[in-house]
Amino acid sequence: MSKVIYRRRKSVRPAPHPEEPTYGPLTSQELQLAARNHSMPLEVLREDVTPPGLHYVLTHFDIPHVDTAAWHVRIGGAVERAMELGLAALKRDPAISVPVTLECAGNGRSLLRPRPLSQPWTLEGVGTAVWTGVPLAYLLGQAGIDPEATEVVFTGLDEGIQGGVRHHYARSLPIAEALRADVVLAYKMNGADLPPQHGYPLRLVVPGWYGMASVKWLQSIQVVASPFQGFQQSVAYRYQHTAEDAGTPVTRIRVRSLMVPPGIPDFFTRRRHLPRGPVLLRGRAWSGEGPVTGVEVGIDGHWAPAQLDKPAGPFAWRGWSLPWVADPGDHELVCRARDATGAIQPLEQHWNYQGMGNNVAQCVRVTVE
Amino acid sequence: MSKVIYRRRKSVRPAPHPEEPTYGPLTSQELQLAARNHSMPLEVLREDVTPPGLHYVLTHFDIPHVDTAAWHVRIGGAVERAMELGLAALKRDPAISVPVTLECAGNGRSLLRPRPLSQPWTLEGVGTAVWTGVPLAYLLGQAGIDPEATEVVFTGLDEGIQGGVRHHYARSLPIAEALRADVVLAYKMNGADLPPQHGYPLRLVVPGWYGMASVKWLQSIQVVASPFQGFQQSVAYRYQHTAEDAGTPVTRIRVRSLMVPPGIPDFFTRRRHLPRGPVLLRGRAWSGEGPVTGVEVGIDGHWAPAQLDKPAGPFAWRGWSLPWVADPGDHELVCRARDATGAIQPLEQHWNYQGMGNNVAQCVRVTVE
Repeated sequence: MSKVIYRRRKSVRPAPHPEEPTYGPLTSQELQLAARNHSMPLEVLREDVTPPGLHYVLTHFDIPHVDTAAWHVRIGGAVERAMELGLAALKRDPAISVPVTLECAGNGRSLLRPRPLSQPWTLEGVGTAVWTGVPLAYLLGQAGIDPEATEVVFTGLDEGIQGGVRHHYARSLPIAEALRADVVLAYKMNGADLPPQHGYPLRLVVPGWYGMASVKWLQSIQVVASPFQGFQQSVAYRYQHTAEDAGTPVTRIRVRSLMVPPGIPDFFTRRRHLPRGPVLLRGRAWSGEGPVTGVEVGIDGHWAPAQLDKPAGPFAWRGWSLPWVADPGDHELVCRARDATGAIQPLEQHWNYQGMGNNVAQCVRVTVE
Repeated sequence: MSKVIYRRRKSVRPAPHPEEPTYGPLTSQELQLAARNHSMPLEVLREDVTPPGLHYVLTHFDIPHVDTAAWHVRIGGAVERAMELGLAALKRDPAISVPVTLECAGNGRSLLRPRPLSQPWTLEGVGTAVWTGVPLAYLLGQAGIDPEATEVVFTGLDEGIQGGVRHHYARSLPIAEALRADVVLAYKMNGADLPPQHGYPLRLVVPGWYGMASVKWLQSIQVVASPFQGFQQSVAYRYQHTAEDAGTPVTRIRVRSLMVPPGIPDFFTRRRHLPRGPVLLRGRAWSGEGPVTGVEVGIDGHWAPAQLDKPAGPFAWRGWSLPWVADPGDHELVCRARDATGAIQPLEQHWNYQGMGNNVAQCVRVTVE
């Protein structure tokens, strides 16, 4: 047994306070988060359904280990009949399968100036899966909701500290959202058991809402009669102008489109290179606020409407394409979508303090040889 | 069709040249790579086999799309019988299953000072899987190797530009390594078809070597009689002191251990918090150069030997554990492994120009309450 003094590596720069916007360089804390939390490589946009292991993942704390035999979810609070259900019981209930595009509310954060200090997503914090499980409304029906109930609170097994507050990850939904026919307590993702990082054995999936609503590793579902004040509801996930501003809650996914980067990449810069001639520009577009009604592609500032594929479901992304004849030189390709509410992606950032909902149009730079 | 000029976002800092070490802040190019390439969250070290989607992934270019019906691998060069084999034919050949820990040669790069500019791994560029497929030696036996042959060159379908050179990803192995009984042309990972990011439909797996040797998306296997000079062999993946130094090739995995971070994390800093009292420190250790023979855990500079689990295979990681009674305050936990060659993890960095093989001991900082 030797005794060695481990010399602490000197930090190159002081650690800034989390959730404080900065013009400074990316911090080691942000790099740790970028390494832990997976995004979907943009070329995978070519797939209708994101293959296993390529859907985005954002885990606030650690991925919990769950003993399936001992696990159950508790349904209680302002209900007539509190229940505890294990996985086998849940699988005997009626099941639905819903194709859903989920996106992290912080997607695009690292592009904001100044940059809010949190998970530094570029643009790939997204994915589409078919989620199978019990309709939440069915289980709430079994439990019977008391008339004074206003929200349903979902609590995960994942525990940690954020903003100085120790808590299990928890979020609430208004009763009306919780009773939507497509809100599912999912135990399968694309036909297989949930992988650990997607909430095994049971997660909520709220189609149309940013991912923070779809609580993973569920341990409890509580019906309540007053607004939930948990950290992830009342402090995190809000559109704020400043730290002092109470802000407004982040809810539905803002309209966005992304493009499969054409051609081949440079390893380090990811700049795209392609031969001259015809190329089909393709991508996906989605919105949680209404159906996507159009995608425009800007090529060096000249905009043209893309052709839209049939939607795969009300809350799954929609394919789009536009033929282009690439002529030699450097080009900027931009795509932006609009939805049935009239919302359209901005060409300049919509800055906010937490870096939420940055649906700025994607720009892909290409060199045609 | 509207016409809008898309204003280019101003870059906060100039892009440095790739593969040039820097003391500077993390660049946007490195962040893009960190977002694309997935690492294994450290809590997943608790699993013998890394669950789907959590094994590390490093893709130099794009993940290719493969049409299985049209795909085949060509075996040729200095052989008696050139062959083309599709997936169905490969599945009729004898199969082996091998548990293997794969690690990226650049794992630990972002901790180096100065920092080589490439994929900025922290410490989690690792994973363990059971790979099933045809022994490479069997297929080489079918083809018949010419007596003058010295190497086997493996070429993937993934194409791009690196260091100014356009190429398909390709690497070679010396004949003696290629004929090892445990080198496998894998079409299954943990019993399922390879996912796209792990080389579907066929990849090489070279147990004991850093991941760059295990070429994905194989399109060709060529036996050659002179040293392969491809970019990924003669320029990338070398231990160099300077840019001018030809260096020595990166081959086998250097001994390393990692710890499951105990307790619960702070979201942003990932600092660990745990209650006072007994806790079992656990982790994994591996080496491509020989069996792991010991792991020591340093607690605030006092070292104690961990207990080793039985190895799961010659090139799969080995579990270790050490009971600790945590007393209130801040502590530094360090683990380091040694292998049968006498190699031991360093406590200070072994710097090299490309940032390869940095097996410096991990340090986990904890606060006991």
